[in-house]
Amino acid sequence: MITRTQVKAAQERAALMLEQAGIRITPEERRNIEVAELGLADLEHTGLELVVYVNTDRYCAKELIMFPRQTCPEHRHPAVASGAGKMETFRCRWGRVWLFVPGEPTFDPQGRPPAGSESYYTVFHQITLEPGDQYTIPPDTLHWFQAGDEGAIVSEFSSTSRDESDVFTDPRIRRIPEIVEA
Amino acid sequence: MITRTQVKAAQERAALMLEQAGIRITPEERRNIEVAELGLADLEHTGLELVVYVNTDRYCAKELIMFPRQTCPEHRHPAVASGAGKMETFRCRWGRVWLFVPGEPTFDPQGRPPAGSESYYTVFHQITLEPGDQYTIPPDTLHWFQAGDEGAIVSEFSSTSRDESDVFTDPRIRRIPEIVEA
Repeated sequence: MITRTQVKAAQERAALMLEQAGIRITPEERRNIEVAELGLADLEHTGLELVVYVNTDRYCAKELIMFPRQTCPEHRHPAVASGAGKMETFRCRWGRVWLFVPGEPTFDPQGRPPAGSESYYTVFHQITLEPGDQYTIPPDTLHWFQAGDEGAIVSEFSSTSRDESDVFTDPRIRRIPEIVEA
Repeated sequence: MITRTQVKAAQERAALMLEQAGIRITPEERRNIEVAELGLADLEHTGLELVVYVNTDRYCAKELIMFPRQTCPEHRHPAVASGAGKMETFRCRWGRVWLFVPGEPTFDPQGRPPAGSESYYTVFHQITLEPGDQYTIPPDTLHWFQAGDEGAIVSEFSSTSRDESDVFTDPRIRRIPEIVEA
């Protein structure tokens, strides 16, 4: 649950980050920045902000804006009625992001699960993405990612987004936000 | 036909434009910037430069770099054996681009077919894209586009790219470049 006031503050902060990175969005996109609070009521640590540029039945492109050390928690994109799960490519545009995928756990990783949620994180192979770096995540593959100390802006290129199908490891997560007036 | 020297010069010029726009690419991507000369031996007027970020069997993302007034000539993406033709979304990141699609011809358009090639341009409904603006082109739809006086950088989000399937109105066009050593 997140209040309208919190949403607006996060939208403004995300818009400022985009501006500082030289990434232009329209006034309408700015008003519609998605604040994915994810149900833990701790946006500062768990959640992310998104500008969805396009999402058709064939492809999708978004800009992900993450505040310093903000984490998108572990999840996967399973197969859906219409076919294979979502495949996505993360390309870092600004800042730094640590992406975690299945594989040999990284010794002394820089990214860390948010305090209190450690038990809902199970993959620990760390990939560091800095501006110009990218990584493609196959369908139905567990992953989570955390911004560095300055935050991060990441372009996501993917097959069609069906957020309601995402499966999060943490059963408390709610992908579709509940916004209350305040 | 284009010489290796011309390719390198165009790559350097495109890389400089990306840098000025604050768009980071890796050294490998810089070496591999695609210079699409398109067979008319007149890159300054007809052609474009591309950084292909990702092209899977599900989606594709590229950065298109266009020199001042450079034109990507009229073409369409027809259906292929595996399904519908390419659908693509152009999002202007820097500069200005005039995109032409079927529809009411625009009175006094700012974009103009390159001199000597006028007869190979047939759609004249102009859409102006400035940073933050985008437009989605349905499959199998004729379109062409020209950069403004400062050039343009355009993100292309799309279904899978199969350049060899593109159908250009101008029969002289060759989508796959022939590079000679010089």
